[in-house]
Amino acid sequence: MSGIAGREFVAGRRFLGRLAHGTDILGAIEEFCVRHEIRSGVFSLIGAVSSATIGAYDQKQQVYVTVKEDRELEILSCTGNISLKEGRPFVHAHIVLADIHGETIGGHLFSDTLVFAGEIEIVELVGTPPERAYDEVTGLMLWQMTTDTS
Amino acid sequence: MSGIAGREFVAGRRFLGRLAHGTDILGAIEEFCVRHEIRSGVFSLIGAVSSATIGAYDQKQQVYVTVKEDRELEILSCTGNISLKEGRPFVHAHIVLADIHGETIGGHLFSDTLVFAGEIEIVELVGTPPERAYDEVTGLMLWQMTTDTS
Amino acid sequence: MSGIAGREFVAGRRFLGRLAHGTDILGAIEEFCVRHEIRSGVFSLIGAVSSATIGAYDQKQQVYVTVKEDRELEILSCTGNISLKEGRPFVHAHIVLADIHGETIGGHLFSDTLVFAGEIEIVELVGTPPERAYDEVTGLMLWQMTTDTS
Repeated sequence: MSGIAGREFVAGRRFLGRLAHGTDILGAIEEFCVRHEIRSGVFSLIGAVSSATIGAYDQKQQVYVTVKEDRELEILSCTGNISLKEGRPFVHAHIVLADIHGETIGGHLFSDTLVFAGEIEIVELVGTPPERAYDEVTGLMLWQMTTDTS
Repeated sequence: MSGIAGREFVAGRRFLGRLAHGTDILGAIEEFCVRHEIRSGVFSLIGAVSSATIGAYDQKQQVYVTVKEDRELEILSCTGNISLKEGRPFVHAHIVLADIHGETIGGHLFSDTLVFAGEIEIVELVGTPPERAYDEVTGLMLWQMTTDTS
Repeated sequence: MSGIAGREFVAGRRFLGRLAHGTDILGAIEEFCVRHEIRSGVFSLIGAVSSATIGAYDQKQQVYVTVKEDRELEILSCTGNISLKEGRPFVHAHIVLADIHGETIGGHLFSDTLVFAGEIEIVELVGTPPERAYDEVTGLMLWQMTTDTS
């Protein structure tokens, strides 16, 4: 496998959306994808949360370590992708947050991250959706790609 | 309202641009949108600033608290959207910055953030532009969307 | 020069890709661009690294100061662009990283940043690719744009 194994897509529908106050970010994106039959795509959002659950992957132990932040935080960046896991749209997102003083924290985004206000762009990518499968080397559910395909 | 109320757009013009040394980020993007008649869209930029003004929204007091940083900082991420506020293109952006040691801060981007060097991508979204209006729950000027539209 | 000097592009091919375990991020993106003849574009990636080299530009001394991080870090955001430098595809990227506690660092991305796992979207922009040239004011290799072009 060379440095990047890629698959080509055509840009499909594009959406700007408002996240409902009090909603869970991951749940909201997944529900939107199911409702609009989006099977692969990318997104970017900014806004604020009233609480957040973030994590990082312990590469040696091969487990996620999570932290729950029960406080108001700005969403400085939240980007990721939509692909298939066990046949259903699955959202993978990483997030950068800041407190009232501008101090930042962040990680892999988990559920139980509640929106105060949020604005998202979602871009559907039309083509064969990437499917996640267990990867022996990392212990993660990664896209099954080892060479360029279309 | 479900988790996300969205509106569908068609991708319009795409621009790569160089921000002028010494210019204000928000002012530069807004002026570009007025000059090119961009009424809705998204953007992403990287670069560096010679000074920055960032803030966070105090969700209980419903006011923005700002911090002025009079120092050189890298722009690690600056993403956001363009929509209409009182009939004119309005830029909403969040930013992540780092100092010479890699230490990060960030927040909602305010004017009086001066570019040292910067490179931006702007994507026009063609469709009915979102319009901002006062939201009772949050005290913010949010997009008037409560159900999916096109 | 007004605030932003921009050039218009048409969106070309779009790729989702998986970065190989152990690969260098910048090298992998550049090699992908050469293989697919991508001369200008943008990208966004998330994932994790086993080590990273980041830096910031000292605006007065006009030199990059780098830091090598020999530890596991999540990639919270890594965005940037592809343009031409001395006639070849050149990748400019900034990155935000977090440790297992969610503490963030970041900067200009340098080579010798090794992927643990990574997922990237690359969008080709079709048009006259921006070319980098030495800029007297900043000491950086910036895009040669001073007015809007197409």
